[in-house]
Amino acid sequence: MDNRPIGIFDSGIGGLTAFKKVRQLMPNENIIYFGDTSRVPYGGRSSDTIKQYAAQDIRFLLSHQVKMIVIACGTVSANLPPILQQLSVPYTGVLQPAVEAACRATKTRRIGILATAATIRSCAYEKAIFEILPDAMLVPKACPMFVPLVENGYIQKDCTVTRMIAEEYLTPLKEAEVDTIILGCTHYPVIKELIGDLVGPDVTLIDSGKEAARCTQSYLEEKGLRTHRTEPGASHFFVSDTVDSFAATARIFLGRDIGRDASHIDINQY
Amino acid sequence: MDNRPIGIFDSGIGGLTAFKKVRQLMPNENIIYFGDTSRVPYGGRSSDTIKQYAAQDIRFLLSHQVKMIVIACGTVSANLPPILQQLSVPYTGVLQPAVEAACRATKTRRIGILATAATIRSCAYEKAIFEILPDAMLVPKACPMFVPLVENGYIQKDCTVTRMIAEEYLTPLKEAEVDTIILGCTHYPVIKELIGDLVGPDVTLIDSGKEAARCTQSYLEEKGLRTHRTEPGASHFFVSDTVDSFAATARIFLGRDIGRDASHIDINQY
Repeated sequence: MDNRPIGIFDSGIGGLTAFKKVRQLMPNENIIYFGDTSRVPYGGRSSDTIKQYAAQDIRFLLSHQVKMIVIACGTVSANLPPILQQLSVPYTGVLQPAVEAACRATKTRRIGILATAATIRSCAYEKAIFEILPDAMLVPKACPMFVPLVENGYIQKDCTVTRMIAEEYLTPLKEAEVDTIILGCTHYPVIKELIGDLVGPDVTLIDSGKEAARCTQSYLEEKGLRTHRTEPGASHFFVSDTVDSFAATARIFLGRDIGRDASHIDINQY
Repeated sequence: MDNRPIGIFDSGIGGLTAFKKVRQLMPNENIIYFGDTSRVPYGGRSSDTIKQYAAQDIRFLLSHQVKMIVIACGTVSANLPPILQQLSVPYTGVLQPAVEAACRATKTRRIGILATAATIRSCAYEKAIFEILPDAMLVPKACPMFVPLVENGYIQKDCTVTRMIAEEYLTPLKEAEVDTIILGCTHYPVIKELIGDLVGPDVTLIDSGKEAARCTQSYLEEKGLRTHRTEPGASHFFVSDTVDSFAATARIFLGRDIGRDASHIDINQY
């Protein structure tokens, strides 16, 4: 039994899709969430910069004595920083759980991957899928406009602008007749309904944040690291920009006000 | 006469619209350009974070012994950092030159302001215009999608997605029948033709970067600070993320390869 908190981080608010699922699966755990809102988005930056930012994010979570780290950022999961090799606590990214779920779901072995430019450039999803399904037919597609569209609220199922951009991104996946699509960035589940509407009901959409949450639960249970608390766990949110705008967007994601549970930190101290 | 370089900075590549005009007006000057590409965009961040980033950008330029600083970022120009009060070199933002040009251009005293969320929130354009035209009728509009659209190349005059977003942003300006619009972010001149097409030929569009370049030239000439070089001046570009992606986009902006004249720096050292 281990009462230390679970640490979750993302470049910004996208990781709240993973947070929500972790909270739902493990209501008694304490959770520390960090969103690097003063440097979001990560998805258009170089691998070196992403690794440097992620190392700081991890050092911040470690300063809160977390028992496990959930890298709820697709871009970091595809560009893992060297600091992870020396960690004394376990961690999971969103990539491996999503890949395993996609490989279980596909029947035709034709899998589409939607992710940020930095993730697609890393080829990390391809490498991980080929480990499991060496003969898979993969269609990776960078979707640089999805994060700004989601961050700015263009998220309704019938939003014409987002539909047009999504149609552009989905064209090669449809042409290749994929039967499974990995939403390889934790922002994308916010427009899952819109994407599902465009590809039709026969295509399985894999929510990488949700799969990472399931993986975290399994690991903690297997290793006997779950809390023995019976009362609801606490959640605290830290951000590197001011709390206000994060709290406003978090309300849309979580359906509740997190203002009192959120604090600003200077990530350059870590 | 002063042979030191002119320093120009922006959050990313938008300031190249100002750089281009400075270079055109003063071909013999040396120019140091800094783009904070590891932390772009600034326009959605809080005033405190913007001021902190801008102070670092300015310290970097000062380390290169610049004779004048051009703040080629609308968001910083509207959220000036305290460091400017102690500067030993002159500076100009894009705000004041754009405001003066708009006040000269308007006949109906109805002026629209397109800028980032942080700039609109600051009310800096309104305050500066009311100093000159106290009875002006102003229509400020935050355009958070313009920077990602420009950065991702949705810039053609007939681009449906950008036209739809621009129509949304321009609606209140058209309804108020403005005769002048300030493009209050240095990214926006890239889609000036598209915006002009939507508002019609009777509306004057003010390019804030271009006005800042003119203002820089006037100031240096007035103070006797122009170079006495007769050969073409050198340009050097510094970025806080890797050079590659910046060089690719800069090629679109400037129509030439800047790869050899560009270097990476760690902005957190400043």
